[in-house]
Amino acid sequence: MEKDNREFLLNLLKEKNAKQLREELMKYNEADIAEFIEEIDEVQTLAVFRILPKDIASEVFAYFDPDMKLYLLNLMTNVELTEIVDDLYIDDFVDMLEELPANIVKRVMKDINPEKRNIINQYLQYPEESAGSIMTAEFIDIKKSMTVGQTLERIRKVGMKSETVYTLYITDESRKLEGYLSIRTILKNDESVVVETLMEEDVIYANTFDDQEDIAKLFKKYGFLAIPVVDNEKRLVGVVTFDDAVDVMQEESTEDFELMAAMTPSEKPYLKSSVLEIAKNRFVWLIILLLTATITGSIISKYEQILTAVTGVIAFLPMIIGTGGNAGSQSSTIVIRGLSIGEIELKDYPRVFVKELGVSLIVGIGLALFNYIRIIIFGGSADIALTVSLTLVFTILIAKSVGGLLPIIAQKLNMDPAVMAAPLITTIVDTLSLIIYVIFVSLILI
Amino acid sequence: MEKDNREFLLNLLKEKNAKQLREELMKYNEADIAEFIEEIDEVQTLAVFRILPKDIASEVFAYFDPDMKLYLLNLMTNVELTEIVDDLYIDDFVDMLEELPANIVKRVMKDINPEKRNIINQYLQYPEESAGSIMTAEFIDIKKSMTVGQTLERIRKVGMKSETVYTLYITDESRKLEGYLSIRTILKNDESVVVETLMEEDVIYANTFDDQEDIAKLFKKYGFLAIPVVDNEKRLVGVVTFDDAVDVMQEESTEDFELMAAMTPSEKPYLKSSVLEIAKNRFVWLIILLLTATITGSIISKYEQILTAVTGVIAFLPMIIGTGGNAGSQSSTIVIRGLSIGEIELKDYPRVFVKELGVSLIVGIGLALFNYIRIIIFGGSADIALTVSLTLVFTILIAKSVGGLLPIIAQKLNMDPAVMAAPLITTIVDTLSLIIYVIFVSLILI
Repeated sequence: MEKDNREFLLNLLKEKNAKQLREELMKYNEADIAEFIEEIDEVQTLAVFRILPKDIASEVFAYFDPDMKLYLLNLMTNVELTEIVDDLYIDDFVDMLEELPANIVKRVMKDINPEKRNIINQYLQYPEESAGSIMTAEFIDIKKSMTVGQTLERIRKVGMKSETVYTLYITDESRKLEGYLSIRTILKNDESVVVETLMEEDVIYANTFDDQEDIAKLFKKYGFLAIPVVDNEKRLVGVVTFDDAVDVMQEESTEDFELMAAMTPSEKPYLKSSVLEIAKNRFVWLIILLLTATITGSIISKYEQILTAVTGVIAFLPMIIGTGGNAGSQSSTIVIRGLSIGEIELKDYPRVFVKELGVSLIVGIGLALFNYIRIIIFGGSADIALTVSLTLVFTILIAKSVGGLLPIIAQKLNMDPAVMAAPLITTIVDTLSLIIYVIFVSLILI
Repeated sequence: MEKDNREFLLNLLKEKNAKQLREELMKYNEADIAEFIEEIDEVQTLAVFRILPKDIASEVFAYFDPDMKLYLLNLMTNVELTEIVDDLYIDDFVDMLEELPANIVKRVMKDINPEKRNIINQYLQYPEESAGSIMTAEFIDIKKSMTVGQTLERIRKVGMKSETVYTLYITDESRKLEGYLSIRTILKNDESVVVETLMEEDVIYANTFDDQEDIAKLFKKYGFLAIPVVDNEKRLVGVVTFDDAVDVMQEESTEDFELMAAMTPSEKPYLKSSVLEIAKNRFVWLIILLLTATITGSIISKYEQILTAVTGVIAFLPMIIGTGGNAGSQSSTIVIRGLSIGEIELKDYPRVFVKELGVSLIVGIGLALFNYIRIIIFGGSADIALTVSLTLVFTILIAKSVGGLLPIIAQKLNMDPAVMAAPLITTIVDTLSLIIYVIFVSLILI
């Protein structure tokens, strides 16, 4: 919504011109209406929400963030509440329930019709981040004996309550999934044609217990608008739509970003999280890394005499361990991201190893030469220049091997490769590069 | 494709049983067929590709990676080539052209019909990463005077050549975009109803020159299947479909991951890039960071006497700068990701600052206490424990402020915030924490 348009709406609100405000709001998409309501003064939100027509209201409601939903649910009458939540799609409904406190959940569930309540209870039992937890129960299923005309009739009847009408699923008498058909095919055929002659049997489907990340990969691979979800008996129980898959992709990327920067992933947006929650997600990792870093400290303690015997040696230490850490985290980031979007697979580890080896030789020798010349130009001794440069070559070699392979090993051990990211790699490489430095210092300088 | 199924297909291939192989392949989705062909022995690929029916062949072709496309195009006859590329959607076609060497492009463009060639030439002029470069020219536009019946007729006529038939766009006589209509609305209405009474006028659209990242955000916000793209006169020229938006989201996330690990982003997948290409993308950043790290080195040189005056002081240095770097990159990662998915906006910077301040006090004091006790338990002196712990508190305070604010400042200066990630933050924080340490060492220990 443009700033001018918002000002205009805010003016109507100030003038309490409900009729025109309603008319003007109707010109916008539901997502924009929700955004507008979220940004006005809290005491006025319910009033504005109430002027919306009923069918629009529940669509707008689905776009609100959890805090706003809770705030409004608390203020609504029971009748209003039932009207709003009855119109929500099952998956949006379940998402909402999972974020509400128990007393509100009770109030919301009280007046829901028993059939819907059963479906919802079943949904609540699917594990978090499973296909079952993100699917919707509103889809169009048809029988293969139906004609195109009968199918169109069915779409007209149930289509409006279905989250997606673009793909139709064919099931047998025991609700087992047999095939699919796109609305495109229906539209180009005569009303008398039988579905069985049109349907595609190579249907790509997921199980309710599949990981949501795998579902997102299916969407990515095939470009579908929806993917059907079946139970263990291959009975069709729901459909994941592409917009939910997009949410999953974004969520999973964000999780990777957080893990890779040594934080416990959180589903709550940063600005909505309390300082204490954020601190908690960061503290544990910092402690772990701090303890790991003390290994480096004890190596320095042990070899302090070697490192301080020649003036100037210790000054290069931050540059060496810094470069090692950076080189290692470049490799681990590429491999973690590659594994996560499926560009790299477990079986590719020899190719990754060879590539990282080649890259580290080029980069290592290049940096070492650059560094050698730099030290000489700035008046350093040739011996120190040689020591530092040799250390750099071996540090980068080890950093890139460790960075390239640890994420693959993590995947192999069924851990999240994102754990093997910059912070951990850096700590490991710190120690190794320090040892290499101590060795070269004692070989060349002492 | 399951392993057993692949083995079965490979057997048919070995037996040269083309007829059955074709039949079996037809049971799979085009994406799976493409995957199968990419994995067989290169000399057999053209033969297998040739047994596919014509309409399937071009869909499979669109799924191939650039190397495979080039390989096959080189082997195809001119007739085959024209058949295949004629059936590609404009956006897939243009994507392909951009990846092919000039001589092949010439061959491909030679037999294209002039109308299509004009459209393609126009597409090639849109800037990279713009809406124009990812849109498709195949969409269904209707007039508001048409009836539902006439619309269905039009879908039947042009629908099969349209990449998406699920949203229809209404344009006036000068092709200006007036509104949209979902197929769902068409299906539920009588054939005699006029489009004008059904169409939605609050159409969300993009301009050909808009950044693809902004388009992806529109998909995320509204959950649309397609977004129309207009030129500067608001004439409808194309449509971006959700699958292209999903590609953009993934691409942009990958770019952030690469930038945040100090690499020049590359569009080429890791395993397809040469060692030299990879080395180039990493080398420049490592040099820059190495030079920045020398600042730390010169500070150590300057204060080497202070840092080595008391035994044990230098041993804590890696832990202190490591913790500072980790604390800073936690903050910068959260803010960079938040800015990139729109959870944090420029105007939020005071809130970010206050949050990071609060978090750093809790985390800093927590870590300092933990560390104080640890040093005492392991027999360290109380003075050293106090020095190290005080340094930690201030290091984390500064690290989190720098990490939280630099990405916002970068955004403000129209730079990519992802540049202000772990490697750079770490280097800056290294220097600052070292200075803090030197100050406390000279205040308390000397």
